Amino acid sequence: MTGYHRAMIREPFDAASERPVRLGPLPDEALDALVVVLDEIRFGRSRSRSELVTRTGLGRAIVAQRVGELIERGLVTEGDVGPSTGGRPPRQLTFRADGGYILVADLGATSIDVAVTTLDGRILGHHDEPARIEAGPETALDRVDVLFDSLVRTTQGLPGRLWGVGIGVPGPVEFASGRPISPPIMPGWDGYAIRERFAARYGAPVWIDNDVNVLALGEWRSGVAAGHANVVVVKIGTGIGAGIISDGHLHRGAQGSAGDVGHIQVTDDPTVVCRCGNIGCLEAVAGGAALGRAGQGAAEDGRSARLQTALDQRGVVTAEDVARAASFGDPVAVALLGEAGRRVGSMLAGIVNFFNPSLIVIGGGVANSPDQLLAAIRETIYRRSLPLATRDLLVQRSSLGGLAGVIGASVMVGDQLFSRESLARWIEAGEPGGVTEVAS
Amino acid sequence: MTGYHRAMIREPFDAASERPVRLGPLPDEALDALVVVLDEIRFGRSRSRSELVTRTGLGRAIVAQRVGELIERGLVTEGDVGPSTGGRPPRQLTFRADGGYILVADLGATSIDVAVTTLDGRILGHHDEPARIEAGPETALDRVDVLFDSLVRTTQGLPGRLWGVGIGVPGPVEFASGRPISPPIMPGWDGYAIRERFAARYGAPVWIDNDVNVLALGEWRSGVAAGHANVVVVKIGTGIGAGIISDGHLHRGAQGSAGDVGHIQVTDDPTVVCRCGNIGCLEAVAGGAALGRAGQGAAEDGRSARLQTALDQRGVVTAEDVARAASFGDPVAVALLGEAGRRVGSMLAGIVNFFNPSLIVIGGGVANSPDQLLAAIRETIYRRSLPLATRDLLVQRSSLGGLAGVIGASVMVGDQLFSRESLARWIEAGEPGGVTEVAS
Repeated sequence: MTGYHRAMIREPFDAASERPVRLGPLPDEALDALVVVLDEIRFGRSRSRSELVTRTGLGRAIVAQRVGELIERGLVTEGDVGPSTGGRPPRQLTFRADGGYILVADLGATSIDVAVTTLDGRILGHHDEPARIEAGPETALDRVDVLFDSLVRTTQGLPGRLWGVGIGVPGPVEFASGRPISPPIMPGWDGYAIRERFAARYGAPVWIDNDVNVLALGEWRSGVAAGHANVVVVKIGTGIGAGIISDGHLHRGAQGSAGDVGHIQVTDDPTVVCRCGNIGCLEAVAGGAALGRAGQGAAEDGRSARLQTALDQRGVVTAEDVARAASFGDPVAVALLGEAGRRVGSMLAGIVNFFNPSLIVIGGGVANSPDQLLAAIRETIYRRSLPLATRDLLVQRSSLGGLAGVIGASVMVGDQLFSRESLARWIEAGEPGGVTEVAS
Repeated sequence: MTGYHRAMIREPFDAASERPVRLGPLPDEALDALVVVLDEIRFGRSRSRSELVTRTGLGRAIVAQRVGELIERGLVTEGDVGPSTGGRPPRQLTFRADGGYILVADLGATSIDVAVTTLDGRILGHHDEPARIEAGPETALDRVDVLFDSLVRTTQGLPGRLWGVGIGVPGPVEFASGRPISPPIMPGWDGYAIRERFAARYGAPVWIDNDVNVLALGEWRSGVAAGHANVVVVKIGTGIGAGIISDGHLHRGAQGSAGDVGHIQVTDDPTVVCRCGNIGCLEAVAGGAALGRAGQGAAEDGRSARLQTALDQRGVVTAEDVARAASFGDPVAVALLGEAGRRVGSMLAGIVNFFNPSLIVIGGGVANSPDQLLAAIRETIYRRSLPLATRDLLVQRSSLGGLAGVIGASVMVGDQLFSRESLARWIEAGEPGGVTEVAS
């Protein structure tokens, strides 16, 4: 069953309100066409009515009607006359990305990133600072409120009003309800009503997803993964997780826990105990915390003078210290990064055989390290996976770096705001952007 | 991008003929509705016009038009008056599954299964026999021709004429061209034009896929996986492979090699050399060939009297011998199956963390063995995967057994025959079922 079929074969009742869904003045087929036309313009794939006709296969009259409605509703503008290819010069169609703004926060294990963006994910203002997710939701989200207020106050020329809020968190999320589910490194967050909290304060729709899904969306729409239909985006930070693009959509899995690759067993060594309670998890040998511990061991044993300096200065060695030492050629640090890379690569070789992606993206704090890590990951994947699966496989570094999380959160909000379900509700309500109760 | 968008945003030219695609009398939106309505009736989800209206969200007039077209084209029949719920009693709509028949062959490493089915995958005639895929395409496919002819001759009351041919093969296939690509256990088959060969002989469209994809389609449409959106179907035969249902569609991956789990590394032991040339592949320790070898070792060492008897009788011990010995309680055979199950379970535990399916189906020759194998697989998955990912996870035995391959091949043909692209071509040609040039 294709996505289209799933979209069409839905229950006729709104599960939340138990009332029949009224789709407003547009019949369903017209609504489908509206979504297709808007996506074409929104992603810059079609820039004129004739391009829309060519690319979508929709009739000329239908395209003209749908474009007219989008202009009328303020989602599309008709700009300058585009380049002519003979005949009447076409009018350039543009998504009105500055019709409003989106507020996003990417919460990591040890950081908060916030940004205000246009409706197409362009960053207008950005701020990041250290924070501890384990301080609990009240502390973290109060701080997000303060930072959001500050962004809105200080960003020059903020367009229109707030259309949506997007939040990424470092743990499993039930996407439909927007609530964290038993997140291992987020004490106090289990089942916390993040959506309701922000919706009440901001009067705008709110979507929450885990940080790796958000990262994958960002790289897929605006980064190195653009144009790929099957992608695995690996985040190597304190822990290790993956976001999955499967045949052109974000794959969340049956319980929304897909991509939890940090807890795949990679060794039988009984001394490798993971924070999850299992033995031999990837994260316990190759995550940021494990790298930091291994570096600290090398510093304490006197095997690395450079890591010893880091230990003396701050009393602790972090993964970032190891990465920095490796970039200066410290042999112990280079070896540690190489070993972590081979572990990650070995896990990914299995994923490549199972999933056959065309691209693997390596991101996260630890990945912003010298080339040794990426080289070891690449080498192991190419050595261990089947030739057919690696024939055209690319393994690349994240292209958005530290901004991938907030860009991805904004992309998530945009995709939800301009989904079929949202557009149907907007048309019913007569006005976009004011919906606080959102479909899953 | 959803499936719908992919379907809509296609090139306006037929890549094969380089002529503009003419979609016949139906505009695109109507064609989309036609596919949705036909699928509803075909899968038995909607049995009347009012159920169609309720379930699809399409308007009453549109539903009536599309149903009328399907009846006119002989794809749907209007039968007895269904149960009334007040008002005018509804007329029951049924897919005309006996409008024609489908010929299918499931080629295994050591067997050929052929069947003739209705258009909805119901088996009308079936035959299986031992065969060696390594004898090459001419030998194997000549035999398929003979068996197809025999089936057509001997099956009583074959409906209509041949609408399509479906073939499953034990190796990677480029689905668009229908050609095997570097299949490791199929010498002589690389790039062989299976489609062209059958299309020329039968004058009907032909589709080819690998045996595990076909198995997954069968279990998903007609077996234990029905109703699940995220499924991994593992086939443990001579080798080990998996078919993947991802968010309600078959996931083939970027090169069509997804599901090649038999070559995931599960041990560092340098003495475990796989036929693929790598060290420590799952298949080399837990596939049927490996089980047979281990059983033969136990027979030669005199560790198992029952396996020794098998060796004395036929000069070789197979995986089936090990399974049979285990079912009689032979402790060595039980231990071998348990070890194989733990190896498969350990690999699957990683897949569960990565992919988060709601169901894992275990099929293939070795899986038709006593419960020890399934029990060991289950135990290892539940012990090694994250609690959230296994909360509602089912691990079940294949429900279609030896028929899953041919049923799946028929489902594949049905899905392709009644796809949007095929329907568009049929409408243009004026007659269904006579298309030999098929879209990928």
